[in-house]
Amino acid sequence: MGEGGQGIRTTGADVLVDTLLANGVDVCFANPGTSEMHFVAALDRKPELRCILGLSEGLVTGAADGYARMTGRPAATLLHTGPGLSNGLANLHNARRARAAVVNIVGDHASHHLPLDAPLTTDIESLAAPMSNWVRRVKDPADVGPTVAAAVQAALTPPGVATMILPADAAWGTLALATAPQKAPIEAPRPASAETVREVARLIRSNPQGIAMVVSGAAAQADGLAVAGRIAAACGIQLFNEVLVAHTQRGRGRVAPARIPYPIDMALATLKDVRVLILVGAPEPVAFFAYPGMPGRLVPEGCTVATLARHGEDLKATLEALGDELGVSPTGPLPTAGTPTDTGEPSGPLTEDAIAVIVAHKVPEDAIVCDEGVTSARRFFALSAFSAPHDLIMQTGGAIGDGIPLATGAAIACPDRKVICLQADGSAMYNIQGLWTQARENLDIVTVIFSNRTYAILHAEMRNVGVGEIGTNARQMLNLDNPALDWVSLARGLGVEAAVATSCEAFAALFSAALSRRGPFLIEARLA
Amino acid sequence: MGEGGQGIRTTGADVLVDTLLANGVDVCFANPGTSEMHFVAALDRKPELRCILGLSEGLVTGAADGYARMTGRPAATLLHTGPGLSNGLANLHNARRARAAVVNIVGDHASHHLPLDAPLTTDIESLAAPMSNWVRRVKDPADVGPTVAAAVQAALTPPGVATMILPADAAWGTLALATAPQKAPIEAPRPASAETVREVARLIRSNPQGIAMVVSGAAAQADGLAVAGRIAAACGIQLFNEVLVAHTQRGRGRVAPARIPYPIDMALATLKDVRVLILVGAPEPVAFFAYPGMPGRLVPEGCTVATLARHGEDLKATLEALGDELGVSPTGPLPTAGTPTDTGEPSGPLTEDAIAVIVAHKVPEDAIVCDEGVTSARRFFALSAFSAPHDLIMQTGGAIGDGIPLATGAAIACPDRKVICLQADGSAMYNIQGLWTQARENLDIVTVIFSNRTYAILHAEMRNVGVGEIGTNARQMLNLDNPALDWVSLARGLGVEAAVATSCEAFAALFSAALSRRGPFLIEARLA
Repeated sequence: MGEGGQGIRTTGADVLVDTLLANGVDVCFANPGTSEMHFVAALDRKPELRCILGLSEGLVTGAADGYARMTGRPAATLLHTGPGLSNGLANLHNARRARAAVVNIVGDHASHHLPLDAPLTTDIESLAAPMSNWVRRVKDPADVGPTVAAAVQAALTPPGVATMILPADAAWGTLALATAPQKAPIEAPRPASAETVREVARLIRSNPQGIAMVVSGAAAQADGLAVAGRIAAACGIQLFNEVLVAHTQRGRGRVAPARIPYPIDMALATLKDVRVLILVGAPEPVAFFAYPGMPGRLVPEGCTVATLARHGEDLKATLEALGDELGVSPTGPLPTAGTPTDTGEPSGPLTEDAIAVIVAHKVPEDAIVCDEGVTSARRFFALSAFSAPHDLIMQTGGAIGDGIPLATGAAIACPDRKVICLQADGSAMYNIQGLWTQARENLDIVTVIFSNRTYAILHAEMRNVGVGEIGTNARQMLNLDNPALDWVSLARGLGVEAAVATSCEAFAALFSAALSRRGPFLIEARLA
Repeated sequence: MGEGGQGIRTTGADVLVDTLLANGVDVCFANPGTSEMHFVAALDRKPELRCILGLSEGLVTGAADGYARMTGRPAATLLHTGPGLSNGLANLHNARRARAAVVNIVGDHASHHLPLDAPLTTDIESLAAPMSNWVRRVKDPADVGPTVAAAVQAALTPPGVATMILPADAAWGTLALATAPQKAPIEAPRPASAETVREVARLIRSNPQGIAMVVSGAAAQADGLAVAGRIAAACGIQLFNEVLVAHTQRGRGRVAPARIPYPIDMALATLKDVRVLILVGAPEPVAFFAYPGMPGRLVPEGCTVATLARHGEDLKATLEALGDELGVSPTGPLPTAGTPTDTGEPSGPLTEDAIAVIVAHKVPEDAIVCDEGVTSARRFFALSAFSAPHDLIMQTGGAIGDGIPLATGAAIACPDRKVICLQADGSAMYNIQGLWTQARENLDIVTVIFSNRTYAILHAEMRNVGVGEIGTNARQMLNLDNPALDWVSLARGLGVEAAVATSCEAFAALFSAALSRRGPFLIEARLA
């Protein structure tokens, strides 16, 4: 142990865990395999890193995304070689589109084993690249610490998906124990340049009408919204959330932007009079899909699109600078909230809109609402402006199957808050396995399944492509009614209590009951 | 309509379906999305192409693999953009390792929409490449026919995974209707060269002892096995199947090779005296994973490894040529079958081995056994040599979650044959959604869940890495007991009848009852 002597030795796997912990990563969503056993053994020696098992990797990556959105910090994921990563890619795609911080650890064969092309050998780099902002393969045990530190840094500045590939021999190999694990320097985000702020202020002053602003990230949180809202009220600017919202805060007393609609005709109609569009942390809005003869950009021709601040910059500080430049008082009036379009108690057969009304009425203060209602929960967003103050997260990338995982991650991140998951039935089936993790961790989540027994969005798209009469093959591919999914049995099979509601009254009663207790509960909202 | 006139026009999507049908592809496993709606509309006009919906893409690709293994022909898969493909990649990995013919159709945004980076935009080529033998993006409507023909050809010669990327505008765009869809020329496989055959014959003659042969593909089917078996009997050669068997035919009267064991120590012990290893359609066997201080190649040092014929060559004809060269009579004796090690009726608490014995006794003639028992069904392979003649398919690539999908595809391929799926519980959860497709299509499949409530293989691997005492984090990641999965409820939720057996007697009775009826049935074999 003397200077220059042998020293204490440790393994790459231990360094990995220590470096994660030193960099504030203390949750690991995992679905491990053989090549990760040394890492699992190291995890077992460090109970400070909380490990949460998912029965499928879509849960693992989607939960890491939900965790990051609610904490601003990355969780680690542990995935088994190329196929394990593959299973998790769809929700990493959503995480990337949500600009959420995730650190993936993908186990691989020992380096010397790769040339033998054993059955599980794959090109992990090729698989990881499309859904990652950063990819790096660990070279050897000594490279583990620097790679983990770089991965956490990459995941946080600007937030995004970082994927490190861990060969088994880098995990099991030994190295001299360092005095302290490497810590990544994380720079705080900086506001956009004064020049950019002045240029956007000039645009606003010179266009008395037709100005809109799309807010995202910190600009879509309560404090950022208040700053944006005062500017909007003072200058007559329309505020919008993106079509799919990674994370916003809504409810009474908060500034409530409209959402850019998903259907192309509605989106075009919403933006048709916009002459200046200001982007705050969001990209320019485009059509979700292309349609024959329809434009891809949503702003009208001649519209000026100006980026006030980009993802990764300090959005709230930039908005404050813009307010100063425009002479908007930081205590000035907020936009008026309007009046709720529906305040009655719905009754009779259960409909999507009735569920939106009931949920919006009953959302408890400080709850987290996770929306993967797809077609079914669209009404909720407008109504939620009048709910108790709450957080809202959504599936962001169009890769369905993220509602249950996101809700799971959010509940791990915020154990003292109620999570409400508004979940379309077709989408729920992709990662239904996640309910088991909710039961295992006793997470406080109420899942509402909009049971319409169809991929409703595809019926609409079939009409869009001019198909009036649905035939055998299309019916076979769009409907989920044969057999009907029995959600109560599915939930029970995964250890989660559940019940069915077929009327508004029954749904309201069940939903209240579910909110009044702790732990996971699923309501099959069987739509008329 | 006259010569040189306008002619009849059609869409790229219609050409796609017509070209698939003209090339003998008449089954499509699908999980479609918006960008594929024109294709779905075209499918709706051609009921000859049978469409089968999966609630998750792992079912879609795994079923296509199972279908191809049983028919030798590709099914199409329909997947929605990069995330849909991602969800299906793990089982495409297994398909590629099984050398099965699959034609993937991955819908993408219209070409002009891609530069806008809409939320679902991904690098599909990068995702597809690792699990495909062939990838091509359709350029325009006129390119659809040639690409489909090339994809079918690529899928069949030699068999493998072909992935075509279909931009929405290539599907919805129109072109002049051709007189007939393009048909791909498929060359029949040819035997290995006479020189190779002579060289292998020379090796066999000059080594009176220590010769082994690994058979795969057609060499592992009953007829091919008979040819290999006569050579083996005449020349004292040990026959082996690969560690994971894509497709073989076993049972009374058939030549029954041993399987190369999965555990590294057993694999090394099995091959330790081999001096010449002859490969027939299989790659050289290597360790599934690397372990510290253990070799990656399984044959001993100094062993000669000779390839008689490769995947894609005519393996049976090559074996016949080898027999001729060695002077082996085509009606000569087969290897003796040995005697079954266990013929009693198991009784008492249910164990993995008891299930293997009961299933081996009761397998009906001409059944298809699909084995993703992982650690649980290992005993079955040896016993199955004495069963009624049947086909056996297994998960091949180490990407767990393929049992239910493979069984589904096999049942679609062979509607008149009973399918028995031996399924580990942890692995079953990856694509449990496939049970719904089994119910929807009323497939004749008995699924046996080995319910041991653990990733048993990982417990073994933890012991391999020297962990004796399992702590909090490891227990959390290796055990599935909290909560226990309730398989009967899960199956019921997906529309499949199910029951639990906890004793050998109950399992035997349930298994017999399930075999005697048609349609899907699941048995939770709750292990002691």
